[in-house]
Amino acid sequence: MTASKTPARLRVAVIGAGYWGPNLARNFISSPDWDLVAICDLDGPRAQALADRVGTNVAAYSDVAALLERRDIDAVAIATPARTHHTLVLAALRAGKHILVEKPLADSREHGAEMVREAAERGLILMADHTYCYTPAVIKIRELIAEGALGDILFIDSVRINLGLVQPDVNVFWDLAPHDLSIIDFVLPQGLRPQAVSAQGADPLGAGKACIGYLTIPLQNDAIAHVHVNWLSPTKIRQMVIGGTLRTLVWDDLNPQQRLSVYDRGVDLTQQAVDGANAAASMVSYRLGDTWSPALPEREALGAMAEEFAASIRDGRAPRTDGEAGLRVLAVLEAASRSLASQGLLSSLAGHDAAVTDAARAAVLR
Amino acid sequence: MTASKTPARLRVAVIGAGYWGPNLARNFISSPDWDLVAICDLDGPRAQALADRVGTNVAAYSDVAALLERRDIDAVAIATPARTHHTLVLAALRAGKHILVEKPLADSREHGAEMVREAAERGLILMADHTYCYTPAVIKIRELIAEGALGDILFIDSVRINLGLVQPDVNVFWDLAPHDLSIIDFVLPQGLRPQAVSAQGADPLGAGKACIGYLTIPLQNDAIAHVHVNWLSPTKIRQMVIGGTLRTLVWDDLNPQQRLSVYDRGVDLTQQAVDGANAAASMVSYRLGDTWSPALPEREALGAMAEEFAASIRDGRAPRTDGEAGLRVLAVLEAASRSLASQGLLSSLAGHDAAVTDAARAAVLR
Amino acid sequence: MTASKTPARLRVAVIGAGYWGPNLARNFISSPDWDLVAICDLDGPRAQALADRVGTNVAAYSDVAALLERRDIDAVAIATPARTHHTLVLAALRAGKHILVEKPLADSREHGAEMVREAAERGLILMADHTYCYTPAVIKIRELIAEGALGDILFIDSVRINLGLVQPDVNVFWDLAPHDLSIIDFVLPQGLRPQAVSAQGADPLGAGKACIGYLTIPLQNDAIAHVHVNWLSPTKIRQMVIGGTLRTLVWDDLNPQQRLSVYDRGVDLTQQAVDGANAAASMVSYRLGDTWSPALPEREALGAMAEEFAASIRDGRAPRTDGEAGLRVLAVLEAASRSLASQGLLSSLAGHDAAVTDAARAAVLR
Amino acid sequence: MTASKTPARLRVAVIGAGYWGPNLARNFISSPDWDLVAICDLDGPRAQALADRVGTNVAAYSDVAALLERRDIDAVAIATPARTHHTLVLAALRAGKHILVEKPLADSREHGAEMVREAAERGLILMADHTYCYTPAVIKIRELIAEGALGDILFIDSVRINLGLVQPDVNVFWDLAPHDLSIIDFVLPQGLRPQAVSAQGADPLGAGKACIGYLTIPLQNDAIAHVHVNWLSPTKIRQMVIGGTLRTLVWDDLNPQQRLSVYDRGVDLTQQAVDGANAAASMVSYRLGDTWSPALPEREALGAMAEEFAASIRDGRAPRTDGEAGLRVLAVLEAASRSLASQGLLSSLAGHDAAVTDAARAAVLR
Repeated sequence: MTASKTPARLRVAVIGAGYWGPNLARNFISSPDWDLVAICDLDGPRAQALADRVGTNVAAYSDVAALLERRDIDAVAIATPARTHHTLVLAALRAGKHILVEKPLADSREHGAEMVREAAERGLILMADHTYCYTPAVIKIRELIAEGALGDILFIDSVRINLGLVQPDVNVFWDLAPHDLSIIDFVLPQGLRPQAVSAQGADPLGAGKACIGYLTIPLQNDAIAHVHVNWLSPTKIRQMVIGGTLRTLVWDDLNPQQRLSVYDRGVDLTQQAVDGANAAASMVSYRLGDTWSPALPEREALGAMAEEFAASIRDGRAPRTDGEAGLRVLAVLEAASRSLASQGLLSSLAGHDAAVTDAARAAVLR
Repeated sequence: MTASKTPARLRVAVIGAGYWGPNLARNFISSPDWDLVAICDLDGPRAQALADRVGTNVAAYSDVAALLERRDIDAVAIATPARTHHTLVLAALRAGKHILVEKPLADSREHGAEMVREAAERGLILMADHTYCYTPAVIKIRELIAEGALGDILFIDSVRINLGLVQPDVNVFWDLAPHDLSIIDFVLPQGLRPQAVSAQGADPLGAGKACIGYLTIPLQNDAIAHVHVNWLSPTKIRQMVIGGTLRTLVWDDLNPQQRLSVYDRGVDLTQQAVDGANAAASMVSYRLGDTWSPALPEREALGAMAEEFAASIRDGRAPRTDGEAGLRVLAVLEAASRSLASQGLLSSLAGHDAAVTDAARAAVLR
Repeated sequence: MTASKTPARLRVAVIGAGYWGPNLARNFISSPDWDLVAICDLDGPRAQALADRVGTNVAAYSDVAALLERRDIDAVAIATPARTHHTLVLAALRAGKHILVEKPLADSREHGAEMVREAAERGLILMADHTYCYTPAVIKIRELIAEGALGDILFIDSVRINLGLVQPDVNVFWDLAPHDLSIIDFVLPQGLRPQAVSAQGADPLGAGKACIGYLTIPLQNDAIAHVHVNWLSPTKIRQMVIGGTLRTLVWDDLNPQQRLSVYDRGVDLTQQAVDGANAAASMVSYRLGDTWSPALPEREALGAMAEEFAASIRDGRAPRTDGEAGLRVLAVLEAASRSLASQGLLSSLAGHDAAVTDAARAAVLR
Repeated sequence: MTASKTPARLRVAVIGAGYWGPNLARNFISSPDWDLVAICDLDGPRAQALADRVGTNVAAYSDVAALLERRDIDAVAIATPARTHHTLVLAALRAGKHILVEKPLADSREHGAEMVREAAERGLILMADHTYCYTPAVIKIRELIAEGALGDILFIDSVRINLGLVQPDVNVFWDLAPHDLSIIDFVLPQGLRPQAVSAQGADPLGAGKACIGYLTIPLQNDAIAHVHVNWLSPTKIRQMVIGGTLRTLVWDDLNPQQRLSVYDRGVDLTQQAVDGANAAASMVSYRLGDTWSPALPEREALGAMAEEFAASIRDGRAPRTDGEAGLRVLAVLEAASRSLASQGLLSSLAGHDAAVTDAARAAVLR
């Protein structure tokens, strides 16, 4: 590629200089696709401090409107609390910016859907910051499932527990489960489109919100997904088991020496005619095959996400984790909240799936 | 103690020579409290083979009635499928035998309650074979909770998964969860007496019954217990986390070098008056203290259980895991079956003590 | 195979009813190849107790001579302290018995060599009880090396440490290292035939013998083997790493879920001409490939060893772990003792094959 | 503390912008004690790139002499290959700079001793960059040993293996063992002052230097230290076991959830008169007590080291890891090289310990 073909760098601002914003800023700074031009935070000195720390020509803003007025900014990355996403995103879209939003996409499915529609109508990219979907481990899991290495999915069991900060504005489902849900959505070929969801939670400390949560999601073909999120565990576990008819995969994100293990093991079930009375009984046999742990490249997820964000803008296509993916996560979180409010009863997602989809996707693809 | 003070050995027969019976037989053989005098199995040659293997003066029976007629037998240990417990136990009680029954106590709470009543009326011991309650780890957990080392219990999370045999007659809840439930019942000072239970299950292989199960049990004071049982996991996990206001305990039964870990860590929550509008906000602080792993004696659980069985007979007192404990486990299992049959809705245990429905029993197989 | 073709069972006696004898006895009892006919121990009641425990027609002896006079006994398995092996084995060979001897084969290479010669002259089997060589993991390692999966061997690092009993009559090298050495001898296609050995030890408790030991064994082609044995470690480690030019294998014997791991990783070295002055420099590149963990059958090593003992007798061939293998282990142990006595200096094994000095034997206890 | 009491920041330059220099630079930048004023590297553009990256007013030099001429620089941190330390340090000392040198202190003990003498005579600080000695884990180990928690030290076993770059100019001992040796020197109350050392190495790849190394160091009272360093291991292990008469400590640096474990276990040895013939035998008993894992603060080692460097300059005292500590490490490395050249024979350190010590320390303390 000759120098003249190199696309010009896109120009991005980060809104929110709290916990996650600095990570985004650092990755835009070191990306060949992006120029980080501004940091914005209601707390002006905090914006300035981050701007100073990450580079030399980064401006600081405490006023979003002023930032959005700048015509030379192509995109904004939003790392503020979820309840502010709707207002900020709509404003930024109306100012013509492409958008990357921290998870969860919004504080309600309705808000999220409005954001997705607005982006679609304006032909702008709205990308969900589902960071885990850009890690080498999750990309590999998606590939393995897509190529049929696991066979049909039987179950997904995800555990994400740690001694964590009790968040002031959201419960443990909305804080942690977006990770698990966005990953499940990403690795399943059909995405995460359950009919219903059941949730159980507990608030034993009296924090005013669930600090421990269990989420059960019936999948197609009688398969099941289950997510355990917990702010009160003294030990840190981040583990996902995906069982299939052919093989079962274990992802242990805290074991850098063997993050992924693929077990060539399983239970084979044969329906067999037995005595007349009993009609049929299940014959069970075991496979105890080898275990295989694929080598994974060392690549930082945020860097890959920044690249995808730029590519989707340049190619005028939906990014890998688009607004629709963000909506699917929100749909599950909302159904979980409804189930939580009704003693764990399965809460249907049907009827909540307003038809944003095809129109929105088509619009983005132009 | 002089020889004349040594109590005479009690005489026991084992009924059932399948998977568990031989373990019981071996432990009675090597116990100073017991003489194993007979093995009984419908499959006569199997009874004979086990009798030959474990000792020199052990008789073999294929006819239970004949066995129970023997006046010189003080007690029987029953290791047959759960659906046979009710009939066998009633017959044995009527023959005046003390009884140890493999878990679950019975195939329904109603059946179990009848067994408990019959034993009480006859002044005979009916003991549930909740083996884990006799392991050094579980005994230590009970002590730690009793002495207040954990503070108030906030949550219990139990995982028991493995590549396991799909049982012909019960689902994964009835097969594996009795372990978790009997342990929780044993370590909680007040026992396991929940108001309600919620269960989610899946049968992705089409085995005709749940092979993956999740059980949620609200406890007192907004605490929660959760049990994950799974026959389809390629990796074996047997782990229980018990979180308390003071400390949190992790029991990893597959780590012989550090089975119990007590973490002096936790989240402290302080309710604090803040600005007028918001009234109060939770202030969170962390404790990251030391971890402590108590040394455990090397003692086989079955040996301790055989000793307790003998002692309860001699002292005319309820054994540590008595029929009532078995009933509490059955109550939860039945409520789980009802919940499973109604989309995971919280199923109350109240009012089901006396009259257990056939519907619920049928649901066991769902 | 019809019953008439089934070879008659061989008849065996176990000498030594201490720690290891009962294990051998149990395996002969459950083997289809063997009839266990007698137990012998200087402590008569102990012999009787073991005989009673393991079967119904097992005789007990406290007098070896009386045992060896029995013409109906084909073979003896000797599980007594190493210093008694020479006398017992020679007596048993002279009585026409095939022999299995617990490791180490003898208390000196000279004694061992005499035993091997005597067996050879009489056409009798003399087998070393190198139990690990019959485990599925070690058999798999041998296969992988034999088929070239690891490439050329670069290094072997073996660690066998635990809080262990300080043995009354041998140091930690003679107690534990026979395991590591017999395994290395078994898995290397050419066996363990080093030119020299270096040993370092320590006796920090003043036990009168080394309780911590390090053994370095230069192998062919500048490869190296190293063994760490230690009675004083609070944690138990049994791990062997075998590095090859193509792949590296890790055997973690205490991890039943993943005993063997084969890493497709390594350092590639390319000699390359560089600038004129420097002639050549090493270019290094890395391979970070997948990891693979072969499934291993669940088979008890002692059962496989009993089978091999019988097969070698019936076929009139050397067993897999023959007396020569035992001698190779002894040669290394003796050289280690000499090295220990001379400040860790590399001690040659050449010339010591025939005439082992008393000095070296004395050094065993150092 | 009022602003007038705050000591002025010291001014430092980093020499060497390769692998380690950037880490030092970042830590000086974020230290309240230091102003980083310059980066120097023979490769000018590399120096410039690092200077640009870490701050705004950092100058870049490719000429050391020019750098050292600057009177406003108080100290230099040297992160260049070991063979250049002697020349650079002497030049910097002669220019009046305090010095922090990357490990190993020099490429020979003689060179190192000359550096220490020169610094002492000039009253300047010469500090060894023994980074691990500033980690919370190692500081805790030192405290535990100092307060007698382990009792007398019986053995130290250190393993530091990984798939590592084959270094162009040093073997694996000089590359990795300085870590282990400096740690052992730091945690032992008397420092690392062995009489002799034995080393075994291997170069199975033909790299022209040892890539696998074993180092044995007899300690006082028949204790022993052993270090295993290895560039060719596919798995990464960084573990040190320190056995004492009272307790044993395991430091697993790759286990962030439980870096330190203190085992209240051990072997107790009692000399006891036995039967007349045998005079005395060792009676062994076990303690299997609890395990305890102290909480460690999260503190970056390099930050603590920068603080200590500043404090030692201000207070005119030897830093915790002074030049003498660096010399003790060099003495062991040199003895190891001699042992390696003589077949692993114990190589004495006596006579190599020229009396730099007291004079030098006195001079620094002024």
